[in-house]
Amino acid sequence: MELEALCKAAKAAKYETAALDSDKKNEALIKIADLLVNESETIILANARDIAAATTKGMSIPLIDRLRLTEDRIKAMSEGLKQVAELPDPLTDVLEEWERPNGLSIKKVRVPLGVIGIIYESRPNVTADAFALTFKSGNAVILKGGSDAINSNTAITAVIKKGLKLCGINEDAISLIESTDRETTVAFMQMRDYVDVLIPRGSAGLIRSVVENSKIPVIETGAGNCHVYIDAAADISKAKKIVVNAKTQRLGTCNTAESLLIHEDIKDTVFPEIARALHDKSVEIRGDEEAMASSEYVIPATEDDYYKEYLDLLISVKTVKSVEEAVAHINKYSTHHSECIVTEDETAAEKFLNGVDSACVYVNASTRFTDGFEFGFGAEIGISTQMLHARGPMGLKELTSYKYQIRGNGQVRG
Amino acid sequence: MELEALCKAAKAAKYETAALDSDKKNEALIKIADLLVNESETIILANARDIAAATTKGMSIPLIDRLRLTEDRIKAMSEGLKQVAELPDPLTDVLEEWERPNGLSIKKVRVPLGVIGIIYESRPNVTADAFALTFKSGNAVILKGGSDAINSNTAITAVIKKGLKLCGINEDAISLIESTDRETTVAFMQMRDYVDVLIPRGSAGLIRSVVENSKIPVIETGAGNCHVYIDAAADISKAKKIVVNAKTQRLGTCNTAESLLIHEDIKDTVFPEIARALHDKSVEIRGDEEAMASSEYVIPATEDDYYKEYLDLLISVKTVKSVEEAVAHINKYSTHHSECIVTEDETAAEKFLNGVDSACVYVNASTRFTDGFEFGFGAEIGISTQMLHARGPMGLKELTSYKYQIRGNGQVRG
Repeated sequence: MELEALCKAAKAAKYETAALDSDKKNEALIKIADLLVNESETIILANARDIAAATTKGMSIPLIDRLRLTEDRIKAMSEGLKQVAELPDPLTDVLEEWERPNGLSIKKVRVPLGVIGIIYESRPNVTADAFALTFKSGNAVILKGGSDAINSNTAITAVIKKGLKLCGINEDAISLIESTDRETTVAFMQMRDYVDVLIPRGSAGLIRSVVENSKIPVIETGAGNCHVYIDAAADISKAKKIVVNAKTQRLGTCNTAESLLIHEDIKDTVFPEIARALHDKSVEIRGDEEAMASSEYVIPATEDDYYKEYLDLLISVKTVKSVEEAVAHINKYSTHHSECIVTEDETAAEKFLNGVDSACVYVNASTRFTDGFEFGFGAEIGISTQMLHARGPMGLKELTSYKYQIRGNGQVRG
Repeated sequence: MELEALCKAAKAAKYETAALDSDKKNEALIKIADLLVNESETIILANARDIAAATTKGMSIPLIDRLRLTEDRIKAMSEGLKQVAELPDPLTDVLEEWERPNGLSIKKVRVPLGVIGIIYESRPNVTADAFALTFKSGNAVILKGGSDAINSNTAITAVIKKGLKLCGINEDAISLIESTDRETTVAFMQMRDYVDVLIPRGSAGLIRSVVENSKIPVIETGAGNCHVYIDAAADISKAKKIVVNAKTQRLGTCNTAESLLIHEDIKDTVFPEIARALHDKSVEIRGDEEAMASSEYVIPATEDDYYKEYLDLLISVKTVKSVEEAVAHINKYSTHHSECIVTEDETAAEKFLNGVDSACVYVNASTRFTDGFEFGFGAEIGISTQMLHARGPMGLKELTSYKYQIRGNGQVRG
């Protein structure tokens, strides 16, 4: 379908998805979950074409692996849909309700955002995930995936549309933009008359491009230059466990630690052990002069290192004189995603919790917990790093807005 | 100050304003309120230069009146600041708090948005209003007013800065951009590294320009093509009162009704009386053929009329066959601001409340109530017409975001 026609159809569908009751939505999610498994052969065949094209063009093995769909991965997608069906419907909440002295009764109720555009890269499982979350929260979704996964995405979308149709629901609740060229992406980002919100999912480069080119309001997600600060009053065993986990448990995630701050009082006590532990995990440590003087495993850092989200076996280290200096450093260099203080000192903990301007601020726990599932949201569409609308992990509620319903009996303004 | 330096200074100040306690903020608001009255002579002199320039360039009398500051208007501004001091501090709320099975304790707390940019037109009172609301909610503000009010805005800002300084608060909590040329405005809208949110206040043209050019997240405010729908089961006296109030109580506001929908069953009973009442208030009525057949006061409407926010003695009329058609018409033509159904039929009321996709949906009350004061918020910075972040009247809470504070005792992710 031509781009504008597709966006128009999604806008028309959003009023229908908004009006679906919870049972109907859950029935459709379960039906689609079953269909995905039943039709996994077709999906895997389509995926094979993407894999072949990727191989021909010389894509790296890890990227090809991200692209690949197997019976097991399709089963996981299907399970994901069933899990979303089990979550509470965010649209049934009344947020607030009050009466005014003139007798007007005001009710604030949740409503879907409307049409949500999702721009993403090579993982085809995002297609099913993004549909499940946006649909359950009453939205229509327009997906713009990467060219590498176009055959897989098309096959998955076809199955979802089939399931919607079988349940008597407007199939335009999901649309996939089939052209994957850059011009189409840019044109899509101008479709302000039809699309209410854009959520980019993927690399820092993708997100920057969407933020800079979109005329549609964007929820910025993802980039995480996350810090762990080891305070003067840190417990050494907690510090070691947390730093190693935050840095190495998974290298490529946005909540992975990229920078370590150490209080000067512990640079010759706690820090050398931590440096050794990181070195044992093959992490290259780039630090300032004090850190270099305290551990043989530290090589020099440049100013630029402190801005970097490495997503790799690398960490930067900076020595600070106080919790205040740690907070100021983080507020300057961080992407406002997740930061941690390791300390047994309640005053330092409070200063850090209040002073650090990031979505998630931790005392004595790994930054890796910034995640919708770990927070108990049951699912997530991404991690917002902006101030507007939603901050941190975004679950079903974060895919909604609200409206006011006001009842009177003839009131007019004097 | 040069633009980028000014934005940088505001960013530095935001961490200080965020940390101020309620008493300190209220002390400063009251001090500034008093200073505005004490220094009203200086402000009025500066304003006289703006008035003289406006007169020379032939500005219309109503616009000159909007620009004019008098002792009384400065007193009103001062009172406004004192009222904001009395409002509860939105930053003291804990929004949610829960514990995870692994022992992590998660607290969701309000935080300021950070640096808020406000782009506005000729009313100099916005300078004091916008400062009071953004400051009380812990933000730093950068103001970009219109060239017509530059001397008045500069004088008011100087008084506010003086008050802040007297209270020992960083004066960069407020900044006024002194160049008023278009290039500066465009450059300001690119300052994403320093400014967290932009809120335009003013004409539809101003808002459109900000939405289209800003790289900073925008809260879209204002434009209101508001509808009143008179249902088949409407009470005639309520209908008349509400339509006349919504259209004529104040012509130039965004919550003024611009379009009237009438159910075909009452086009020859209720509608002629309403048309006469509007005609008696000098309102020109542009309608479809059915409306014209029912009242001598109706002249033909074009398709274009249904999209118009007249802000004038004009209203469009359309006849519909059902509440569903009314809802569909509104969702197509409206700016999603405020809409009303007049009906005694509970089923029709429910359909309208749920189906209309606007910030404020009324049953049997004038659209003129869409206002932060009328809602009981105590004040407002504007009315959002977008889905993200805030919808409808925006008070102090809507000028905040949140963060998660998570406490553990050494938890790491497995």
